[in-house]
Amino acid sequence: MAFLKVVPLEKALEVVQSFKISPGIEEVPIEKGLGRIAAEDIYSPIDVPPFDRATVDGYAVRAEDTFMASEASPVRLKVIGSVHAGEEPKFKLGKGEAAYISTGAMLPGNADAVIQFEDVERVNGEILIYKPAYPGLGVMKKGIDIEKGRLLVKKGERLGFKQTALLSAVGINKVKVFRKPKVAVISTGNEIVPPGNELKPGQIYDINGRALCDAINELGGEGIFMGVARDDKESLKALIEKAVNVGDVVVISGGASGGTKDLTASVIEELGEVKVHGIAIQPGKPTIIGVIKGKPVFGLPGYPTSCLTNFTLLVVPLLLRALGREGKIGKKVARLKHKVFSVKGRRQFLPVKLEGDLAVPILKGSGAVTSFIDADGFVEIPETVESLDEGEEVEVTLFKGW
Amino acid sequence: MAFLKVVPLEKALEVVQSFKISPGIEEVPIEKGLGRIAAEDIYSPIDVPPFDRATVDGYAVRAEDTFMASEASPVRLKVIGSVHAGEEPKFKLGKGEAAYISTGAMLPGNADAVIQFEDVERVNGEILIYKPAYPGLGVMKKGIDIEKGRLLVKKGERLGFKQTALLSAVGINKVKVFRKPKVAVISTGNEIVPPGNELKPGQIYDINGRALCDAINELGGEGIFMGVARDDKESLKALIEKAVNVGDVVVISGGASGGTKDLTASVIEELGEVKVHGIAIQPGKPTIIGVIKGKPVFGLPGYPTSCLTNFTLLVVPLLLRALGREGKIGKKVARLKHKVFSVKGRRQFLPVKLEGDLAVPILKGSGAVTSFIDADGFVEIPETVESLDEGEEVEVTLFKGW
Repeated sequence: MAFLKVVPLEKALEVVQSFKISPGIEEVPIEKGLGRIAAEDIYSPIDVPPFDRATVDGYAVRAEDTFMASEASPVRLKVIGSVHAGEEPKFKLGKGEAAYISTGAMLPGNADAVIQFEDVERVNGEILIYKPAYPGLGVMKKGIDIEKGRLLVKKGERLGFKQTALLSAVGINKVKVFRKPKVAVISTGNEIVPPGNELKPGQIYDINGRALCDAINELGGEGIFMGVARDDKESLKALIEKAVNVGDVVVISGGASGGTKDLTASVIEELGEVKVHGIAIQPGKPTIIGVIKGKPVFGLPGYPTSCLTNFTLLVVPLLLRALGREGKIGKKVARLKHKVFSVKGRRQFLPVKLEGDLAVPILKGSGAVTSFIDADGFVEIPETVESLDEGEEVEVTLFKGW
Repeated sequence: MAFLKVVPLEKALEVVQSFKISPGIEEVPIEKGLGRIAAEDIYSPIDVPPFDRATVDGYAVRAEDTFMASEASPVRLKVIGSVHAGEEPKFKLGKGEAAYISTGAMLPGNADAVIQFEDVERVNGEILIYKPAYPGLGVMKKGIDIEKGRLLVKKGERLGFKQTALLSAVGINKVKVFRKPKVAVISTGNEIVPPGNELKPGQIYDINGRALCDAINELGGEGIFMGVARDDKESLKALIEKAVNVGDVVVISGGASGGTKDLTASVIEELGEVKVHGIAIQPGKPTIIGVIKGKPVFGLPGYPTSCLTNFTLLVVPLLLRALGREGKIGKKVARLKHKVFSVKGRRQFLPVKLEGDLAVPILKGSGAVTSFIDADGFVEIPETVESLDEGEEVEVTLFKGW
């Protein structure tokens, strides 16, 4: 039991680091691969192109046969056949021989250059060539584009349309991706009502449930909203037990009302173990980290910006690790638009809005929905620092682009 | 019939502009809204918070009752009740009265300030106040965060996790989004084989089918791959007829082999009408725009980078318009890393790779898969320009972030 014993952030991160969630790997058809995260390094099984390929319409030749060609004394080659795209040539060129070839087609044996139509004269069964062709002219050599064995996609890489197209181009039609880690999300608070319901006096609509679920979805996980728990033990306990069965991870956001945080810790302790109860950061002092049936359970602050900040600090690294994307938290260097003051001895994470290269501190208060909407990320202010100056360079940890 | 009559890009864009595709609007639950495009401006139906709300645990008071308070002569107020978060207070404060209130709770009638616990002394049923409270202290006023009627999401805006959370916070649980425009995609070429099949000598794997489908999917449409047509009339005609029944738009990418482009134009003309056959741009000279049964049909070049460039120039604007996102093509200003030469009288779209603020021209040739993978977008070189200098400022039209 670790009730009310505030620990440094490093200690909390150690606890997170000790968690193992392994949603596993699944193979999906390439047409379902878009947006998923590769679960292994993928290498090209073939050379691209898989053969020496004509890049123009014209005549395949042995370049050496043309070296003596000139305007005054053209070289004469015998046209012995033709190759169209998609065909396998059934013949080889002998000395003094050429073949009609179309763009994209495979060069016949012994051919090493393609002279385009415009540069030859066809006379009956022969062509006249007026200047030398060098080996490789009009040819894309086998493997020059992508050699067999080349690394195409790295483990942990998100598959965008270029990645799926690349895999298609080397013939891969199934891809191993990480299963989406399932995160069961609970909101708490007597005053909190899910959207779509009537709002009675004294009640407000839930924001954290949707915010957490969809932030998890954008990150590549699967956010599953379990509902709003009331500030009583039975309600919270029932919902947490359900959540532990559904999710690989459980995330609970506290209501704004006092007392909820202790309730959450009590229920987690009853069902499993509280590992951390309180972190020496602002916001995040009431944050809880626990384990129930081997599954990590997080209790985050209720104020939306605080909730998202602690989610980014603690839960995102765990989910990224499960997706093979460790360390992929988005950061951006910016300059502070205004001077800000902090309290010495308090490690603060200040929400900021980005305006180009400027980071604008959001001072409206983390209880405001509009603070949450405006915040693009946060800036850390260490314990030892009392203020950051206008124009000071800061590193912004982003709330997106994980 | 517009066979082989090359037109300026402006004329081709006029034809595209004349197309009307209206996939329509659908209402989805907010938990299915992530990543969709809002089909209407969405305004807040409520004030947030919907009532004057305590931001601290403490005592709700009438500020004017405390104006005379001082250390030497504290004001004494009678505690007449309590309000917890989620409750509707059933009483109003009279002169000289206060009420216990928890964070997030609704202020009782006549209360206009909340003094936190630490700043009062409780003695039996009364509290002692040692300094004046100003109206608004410890209170988040009704509507101060989001006023009723405020524009929250604009028509055409992509719903990220912040947007869905914002809608949730004002109680909206259904959202009108644009249906995804369906785009039926056909690859053509005797040498082209879909991934997953055995590659025979002379054949290569399809790249454009997957590239186009997933670029369309990332843009917010639905790309549906119809298959690879062989370079013969029957095969192509059968697939185009099927595609016209499936898609709101049909996109065909040509094989690299010569003759295909005329075949495609012939089939479109037989089934409908060719509007444009050839555009005075490079790449894009063989591009076809037609209409079959009222549905736009595009024939794009077969080389992957050329295909994607013409897709971005011609098809993307149509799809963005259908999604209410007209003009949302991503652009970025960069400086050219190397000098590049162009041909006077030819309007060129040069693929480039972005390295920070530098645009690196891709000169490998648009037939290469790796050119396609490297290209982040393209730079336009007008007819009148023969070269662009190293370091010159250019506008890059991006292949993503639509």
